[in-house]
Amino acid sequence: MEKLILDGKRVSQTVREQLTTQVQGLKTRGITPCLATILVGNDPSSETYVRMKGNACKKVGIESRRIHLPKETTTEELLDTIKGLNEDGAVHGILLQHPVPSHIDERKAFETIAIEKDVDGVTSAGYGQTALGFGKYPSCTPAAIMKILDFYELPIEGKHAVVVGRSPILGKPVSALLLNRNATVTTCHSRTENLADIVKLADIVVAAVGKPEFIKGDWIKKGAVVLDAGYNKGNIGDIDYEACYENASAITPVPGGVGPVTISMLLKHTVEAAALTKA
Amino acid sequence: MEKLILDGKRVSQTVREQLTTQVQGLKTRGITPCLATILVGNDPSSETYVRMKGNACKKVGIESRRIHLPKETTTEELLDTIKGLNEDGAVHGILLQHPVPSHIDERKAFETIAIEKDVDGVTSAGYGQTALGFGKYPSCTPAAIMKILDFYELPIEGKHAVVVGRSPILGKPVSALLLNRNATVTTCHSRTENLADIVKLADIVVAAVGKPEFIKGDWIKKGAVVLDAGYNKGNIGDIDYEACYENASAITPVPGGVGPVTISMLLKHTVEAAALTKA
Repeated sequence: MEKLILDGKRVSQTVREQLTTQVQGLKTRGITPCLATILVGNDPSSETYVRMKGNACKKVGIESRRIHLPKETTTEELLDTIKGLNEDGAVHGILLQHPVPSHIDERKAFETIAIEKDVDGVTSAGYGQTALGFGKYPSCTPAAIMKILDFYELPIEGKHAVVVGRSPILGKPVSALLLNRNATVTTCHSRTENLADIVKLADIVVAAVGKPEFIKGDWIKKGAVVLDAGYNKGNIGDIDYEACYENASAITPVPGGVGPVTISMLLKHTVEAAALTKA
Repeated sequence: MEKLILDGKRVSQTVREQLTTQVQGLKTRGITPCLATILVGNDPSSETYVRMKGNACKKVGIESRRIHLPKETTTEELLDTIKGLNEDGAVHGILLQHPVPSHIDERKAFETIAIEKDVDGVTSAGYGQTALGFGKYPSCTPAAIMKILDFYELPIEGKHAVVVGRSPILGKPVSALLLNRNATVTTCHSRTENLADIVKLADIVVAAVGKPEFIKGDWIKKGAVVLDAGYNKGNIGDIDYEACYENASAITPVPGGVGPVTISMLLKHTVEAAALTKA
């Protein structure tokens, strides 16, 4: 059986080339797409993520405005910052890097982001629109998974997709997007009984569980498409890659699979949001 | 095997008794819960539904305000009516009877309902909150299905629920509610391949497909719980009742199953919305 490695860097490169052209076009109309990133505190991996996103913006011509708040920032202060960005006409997208320090009401902060600037897909209103089929900016990792499937022209309609994980920005929205593309979708999680048996039914497996090498090779039906949205320490995904590779017909590596495309989706949404504004 | 008939009238009666008491309490605080119903045009079954809902309100002490617009009402006129009700402090819940005539943008009308008055659970924002686990008023039929499961103390956690149907007010939200209660949830629809085989996996089957007797008896695993949310002409559900009864351990009849509880959930949400207002 031919084995397809779903190369996220390749997908990402194609998307970013298109975005670079689009951004040039917007700039001739006097619009410079701008993503505001908010980082609260000094978590080293969060700092790295924010820097990566800022650099990615720069490469396609998107302006990035970095807001770094001290770790003792209160919920109210954070909300005020978000409200200010909501009202700032020069800002097209807002990304609140999470997790935020535990004393902050993260959900309240997310919900404060104006839906037209919610390019990271974290608001419940954005989730609702996405799930009902008319959302503009789904969460970026789910969007990346759909982009990879489409880039490699892997069929979705009628397929049985099993999503392992149900977080608000990953398992739930990717389930919704797959359902809207006419997959039959099963959403599994920590309370699922007989998980292995359910994953074995899948034509498409999405691992979004946050546990290293959680999905085993013998859970994968021969010929299934396997997408690993996990990022664990040491660049290890949520699937046991070597073992899953054997049965899969197509599979994302970690790193270099879903990850790079996720950032590209953030850029894409920011450019789309900018395109909807007037110069 | 003991067979449990899930009697919606009994569930409904219990709920309505509680509501009657609650409404009396609210009235002593100077609050009379009020549901505004909007009917556009003269579809006879819609007229019947609206009348039934109005009568049900009256019985528990909820005021119902019936707004009947002509069938040639424009989207703009309907939106104006909804906006007026959004601003009317005496109205706690708004129900737009659907379907509306085809020239009206139904989705736009739904989206115009203020979320705090969306007691019928039709807005995407309400759906998003429900799916992310903090919504106040899920759609009424999904809420009714959960109420029936809870009333009869049927376990949900860890069970495999298969929902057949994915409409914005039924299949999608009931999938979300079951998932939030720790079921493993599979959502099926018209493009699902091998539907019978998937339904056969289910510990809990929800039929929400809108086709008479669509779910066959031999699709039901021995001992499964079967909930029929279908309403088809001639009081026929979406399941082949006689045949499904054989394999099910618990089953809702049609009529007298999910239907009456659905209206009770509308009343319940209206009372809850009223309780959140100040006299």
